[in-house]
Amino acid sequence: MTWGESHGPAIGVVIDGCPPKIPLSVEDIQKELDRRRPGQSTIVTQRKESDTVQILSGVFNGVTLGTPIAMLIINEDPRPEAYEDFKDKFRPSHADYTYQMKYGIRDWRGGGRASARETAARVAAGAVAKKFLSITYGIQILAYVKQVYRIMASVDPNTVTPEQIESNIIRCPDQKTAKRMIKAIDAARKQGDTLGGIIECVVRGVPPGWGEPVFDRLHADLAKAMLSIPAAKGFEIGSGFGCVTMKGSEHNDPFVIRNGRVETLSNYSGGVQGGITNGQPIYFRVAFKPVATIMKPQQTVDIHLQNTTLQAKGRHDPCVLPRAVPVVEAMTALVLADHALRHKTICQWDK
Amino acid sequence: MTWGESHGPAIGVVIDGCPPKIPLSVEDIQKELDRRRPGQSTIVTQRKESDTVQILSGVFNGVTLGTPIAMLIINEDPRPEAYEDFKDKFRPSHADYTYQMKYGIRDWRGGGRASARETAARVAAGAVAKKFLSITYGIQILAYVKQVYRIMASVDPNTVTPEQIESNIIRCPDQKTAKRMIKAIDAARKQGDTLGGIIECVVRGVPPGWGEPVFDRLHADLAKAMLSIPAAKGFEIGSGFGCVTMKGSEHNDPFVIRNGRVETLSNYSGGVQGGITNGQPIYFRVAFKPVATIMKPQQTVDIHLQNTTLQAKGRHDPCVLPRAVPVVEAMTALVLADHALRHKTICQWDK
Amino acid sequence: MTWGESHGPAIGVVIDGCPPKIPLSVEDIQKELDRRRPGQSTIVTQRKESDTVQILSGVFNGVTLGTPIAMLIINEDPRPEAYEDFKDKFRPSHADYTYQMKYGIRDWRGGGRASARETAARVAAGAVAKKFLSITYGIQILAYVKQVYRIMASVDPNTVTPEQIESNIIRCPDQKTAKRMIKAIDAARKQGDTLGGIIECVVRGVPPGWGEPVFDRLHADLAKAMLSIPAAKGFEIGSGFGCVTMKGSEHNDPFVIRNGRVETLSNYSGGVQGGITNGQPIYFRVAFKPVATIMKPQQTVDIHLQNTTLQAKGRHDPCVLPRAVPVVEAMTALVLADHALRHKTICQWDK
Amino acid sequence: MTWGESHGPAIGVVIDGCPPKIPLSVEDIQKELDRRRPGQSTIVTQRKESDTVQILSGVFNGVTLGTPIAMLIINEDPRPEAYEDFKDKFRPSHADYTYQMKYGIRDWRGGGRASARETAARVAAGAVAKKFLSITYGIQILAYVKQVYRIMASVDPNTVTPEQIESNIIRCPDQKTAKRMIKAIDAARKQGDTLGGIIECVVRGVPPGWGEPVFDRLHADLAKAMLSIPAAKGFEIGSGFGCVTMKGSEHNDPFVIRNGRVETLSNYSGGVQGGITNGQPIYFRVAFKPVATIMKPQQTVDIHLQNTTLQAKGRHDPCVLPRAVPVVEAMTALVLADHALRHKTICQWDK
Repeated sequence: MTWGESHGPAIGVVIDGCPPKIPLSVEDIQKELDRRRPGQSTIVTQRKESDTVQILSGVFNGVTLGTPIAMLIINEDPRPEAYEDFKDKFRPSHADYTYQMKYGIRDWRGGGRASARETAARVAAGAVAKKFLSITYGIQILAYVKQVYRIMASVDPNTVTPEQIESNIIRCPDQKTAKRMIKAIDAARKQGDTLGGIIECVVRGVPPGWGEPVFDRLHADLAKAMLSIPAAKGFEIGSGFGCVTMKGSEHNDPFVIRNGRVETLSNYSGGVQGGITNGQPIYFRVAFKPVATIMKPQQTVDIHLQNTTLQAKGRHDPCVLPRAVPVVEAMTALVLADHALRHKTICQWDK
Repeated sequence: MTWGESHGPAIGVVIDGCPPKIPLSVEDIQKELDRRRPGQSTIVTQRKESDTVQILSGVFNGVTLGTPIAMLIINEDPRPEAYEDFKDKFRPSHADYTYQMKYGIRDWRGGGRASARETAARVAAGAVAKKFLSITYGIQILAYVKQVYRIMASVDPNTVTPEQIESNIIRCPDQKTAKRMIKAIDAARKQGDTLGGIIECVVRGVPPGWGEPVFDRLHADLAKAMLSIPAAKGFEIGSGFGCVTMKGSEHNDPFVIRNGRVETLSNYSGGVQGGITNGQPIYFRVAFKPVATIMKPQQTVDIHLQNTTLQAKGRHDPCVLPRAVPVVEAMTALVLADHALRHKTICQWDK
Repeated sequence: MTWGESHGPAIGVVIDGCPPKIPLSVEDIQKELDRRRPGQSTIVTQRKESDTVQILSGVFNGVTLGTPIAMLIINEDPRPEAYEDFKDKFRPSHADYTYQMKYGIRDWRGGGRASARETAARVAAGAVAKKFLSITYGIQILAYVKQVYRIMASVDPNTVTPEQIESNIIRCPDQKTAKRMIKAIDAARKQGDTLGGIIECVVRGVPPGWGEPVFDRLHADLAKAMLSIPAAKGFEIGSGFGCVTMKGSEHNDPFVIRNGRVETLSNYSGGVQGGITNGQPIYFRVAFKPVATIMKPQQTVDIHLQNTTLQAKGRHDPCVLPRAVPVVEAMTALVLADHALRHKTICQWDK
Repeated sequence: MTWGESHGPAIGVVIDGCPPKIPLSVEDIQKELDRRRPGQSTIVTQRKESDTVQILSGVFNGVTLGTPIAMLIINEDPRPEAYEDFKDKFRPSHADYTYQMKYGIRDWRGGGRASARETAARVAAGAVAKKFLSITYGIQILAYVKQVYRIMASVDPNTVTPEQIESNIIRCPDQKTAKRMIKAIDAARKQGDTLGGIIECVVRGVPPGWGEPVFDRLHADLAKAMLSIPAAKGFEIGSGFGCVTMKGSEHNDPFVIRNGRVETLSNYSGGVQGGITNGQPIYFRVAFKPVATIMKPQQTVDIHLQNTTLQAKGRHDPCVLPRAVPVVEAMTALVLADHALRHKTICQWDK
């Protein structure tokens, strides 16, 4: 459970249900937060936040206790004054109006609870889940930028490495395309405009048999987790929307025995069948809209129900994609850790 | 909560949390089930099931009591013998192998719990949710077939009517395109093959302020609900994956006062901003893969881990789309009803 | 999750989360239901219900599938006409008035959902949990009548056997006291009055380490489960209210090594310390009030808010204790099964 | 959700679901914490903790936002060295052994997570719930010490006031008895021994119709909440265990119209019938065992499974009762607030 407003004193997260005796250090968390941190490059927001995490409970002598893990990140550079102009105006395609309608009150300082700043807490929690999955099952989760605006990268999800992803500031392992993406974002930023794109994620090493059969299908939980990330508009697993133009005879993944193990010849299922993993890599894609905060004047209304215009100030991302990569990985890790812990309650097949 | 295996004695559902004093009759449920029923036309499975529902509790003198509503549908035409050949073989792109890996046992009769037959119970539950939403808030939920294979319909979600949708057996309101879709499905069926497609859903009349801000965003819950439907591979809301090729200045939905109410000039948000409704129509799309059961020989493995082949027998759908339309509506209704009941705990904005 | 009204067509239960491959037959369920069944002796209600259970899903070839188990019991002898007089009057110390205030509507036929008849569904579910706990862990759950009115039995919870409990119609293993209890109940029945009492329950064979440390302490969950049984007014574990008149030096349970295992010299903790089992027998007691339906005239009010009187007709229990024994065992089994499944997610101590 | 270890850097709590626009200040929280604080009088532990609370999120301009409220209490006076001797030894009737068996690891510093220090976080959360219940419904929750060891107070729950309760350090409104209780605790402390007792709680002003009919009965949730408090061994509502020696004709609460409202002549039900409130005051009692940490040598075992002895050092309570009073009130407030928010989803009776 995360908590905290963008320009309040701090944000944080409490993790319940983490197994005991997992080695865990502040560094494990911090290195993931540094990938999401503002100000890390020229194509992201210049808000100055070190995003330094403190672990307040649940870890003792370097290992988890099995009790709740509380983590805290102090907001070091809040500048609520930049938002004074939005106090009475609803920013288009933000959550200002909908929060007002739901709660009858809102923290107008930088979006408050609706700010993407909340995702720092998710990244902290995801770092714990990643560590647990890696140590216990050898699972590797890799997300990367697949597309920005009309610029599409060519990436093989089966061979992509963390080093390739981290080798540029856009986090696209296709280096040539990465340069074109960065240029496009720079150009949009200069125009006061913003761009969207697609993040692809691949998970390797998940054993077969994880997931639930009906409502809590693994890919349904992944869909929910991804759509809960700010600015996400779509989710697809395996063949995704592309499945529509294939016939059943093309789309089915034939089973085959390889080295005594059950594998599939193709992987249009994306590693999940009937909501449960089949041991193949899981891969999926998430669409992110262009950031709603643009530096151009926009038509809108105010809380007195009058038509008006507004123009953003403050420090904003021209493209959310590079900083969303660790968030996608974190949410994936949290979903998988949840299913890992559920799964252990169920006996497996004795072949 | 639904229960039941495809070829067991019965399937059913229990609904907890339905408010009291909602008028509810067996006919309300049955008319929705009849839309999902097998054998309703030439392009769906010919399994003979009347899908007659019984209400066993929670309704008294024609209105709900507020206590759990249990509903039961007897399986009238189980033919488990048609599945004898699959007892030891894993059907490609079905849940046979993954169930075996999760549970170490499976009901091989027609997919058992993984069968799409389970969705009849969801349609029954959805009918209750639809009645509640319609009576209490005047909400209308309409799903229809937007695309089959490469054949795309032209439909205006703002004006489409239930009559247009129900006027043909494929449930596509674009009548000309509907005929082409039906032909394509017939052709695939004759080849022993299957087709996928896209269902679009529009919801009208949801007040602003429904939803949750962080994890249980309304569209995240919709995504989960849709991906929990068998054969669903992708979900997108509003502009969806199309948002990627738009700039922020094109994609934002400007607010405007119309007749004293806050409206938006465009609706790329699909009626949801920051996870909470803004009063505009909600619309989203779901991709369904071609049915995995095809009438052609396929390569696979058996439970002794030997390579083998199988060929389906039995009664199957060549295209899941027309019968999935009421399932999409039902799941949408269940998500909205859940948020409706949560929402009432929160006070609204006093303008 | 249970469902069903006392005088509706049927009652039932759906169990989610039962592990696969547990052998389970209708007889396993029926034998527990027969212990709760009305009409089993002269000191219980004479309503004629065979309480015959049907298993509708989740079991295949005699073993559980891991999918939801739905069970159904048809109401064979509903006589709603006996309750016509209560349609407009609130029976004292029943749930009639509170249901009316909560739901604005109620099924007045025999208490509807509030009827103790609902506990038949719990006993069915508990039978599954008992089977699971017995087969997987060798756990034995024994409840018995400890006190009726002022008549208290002398029972050693460490040695009591199922045979002793079932050897008389009051289910009190102290045979002499049992006779006095039966006489007292008969006398009360003849006066049109009712009696309450105490049920004690002992659980043997629970391994150390089950439970949760803060909110879901094992004994807190037991307390909730017991107080959710109709007519229950109090719960105490181990020394219970008796702990109050002991000093810390008397009440502490000293640890000692016996046969290489950690045991305690006394067991005032009742087998649970800090919410987690310590491997000693768990024992607790539940107080049940005298049945509210008496055959004497009583002062009350009607739904028009007028003072009035009523006098019960129909078939009622003069004392709920003998039939509550299997309900206490069932609820205990459900709580333990829930913790058993959670517990497996946690690694144990490597000594 | 609370988090934190007794001798870690901090403890805290996150509250989700608090309605927006409730006025809330640090003082509201602090005044309750001061009642639970160590060192407040001579009969409680002398650990020096100011228990100063910080509100980190969810409150803006003095009112709640509807988003999660995070609160933090720094541990100012941890002295883990006092517990060095317990590192390898299991303290009798503490959670040391059971934590070790569950998690395979434990924070031995002052009980870690199992320490009653965790209840400070509950008191902070309860203060928010109390404020909400008081402002929105005028509900008043009062707990007080009813019995210490063999010394029983005479208190009328219908007229007792907060001032009477707070007028002495034991929090017993019967002033003469209070003095005897304090003397008894002092005497026990000098002997290195500890005492238990009973806390009674009364809730006034809860409207009829709150609660749930089957599993989440209001008094079942209260029972769970009370038994989740460290050292609690029993719970009883209304007549409680005393109901056993009453007949149905004595125990029933006759309804009567008073000033146009439905009331009861007696209140053996304790304000709850069938799990739902009837508008009468709710009252219940909780038994607390004598504190397990005594200053006398005790027999126990160590983690090498050897018999040994231990003797406590450190700062401990000779009797938990006076500091448990605000904890009982807090947990009661949390249960009621939860039901208040659920209840609003349900329509009421239109008389």
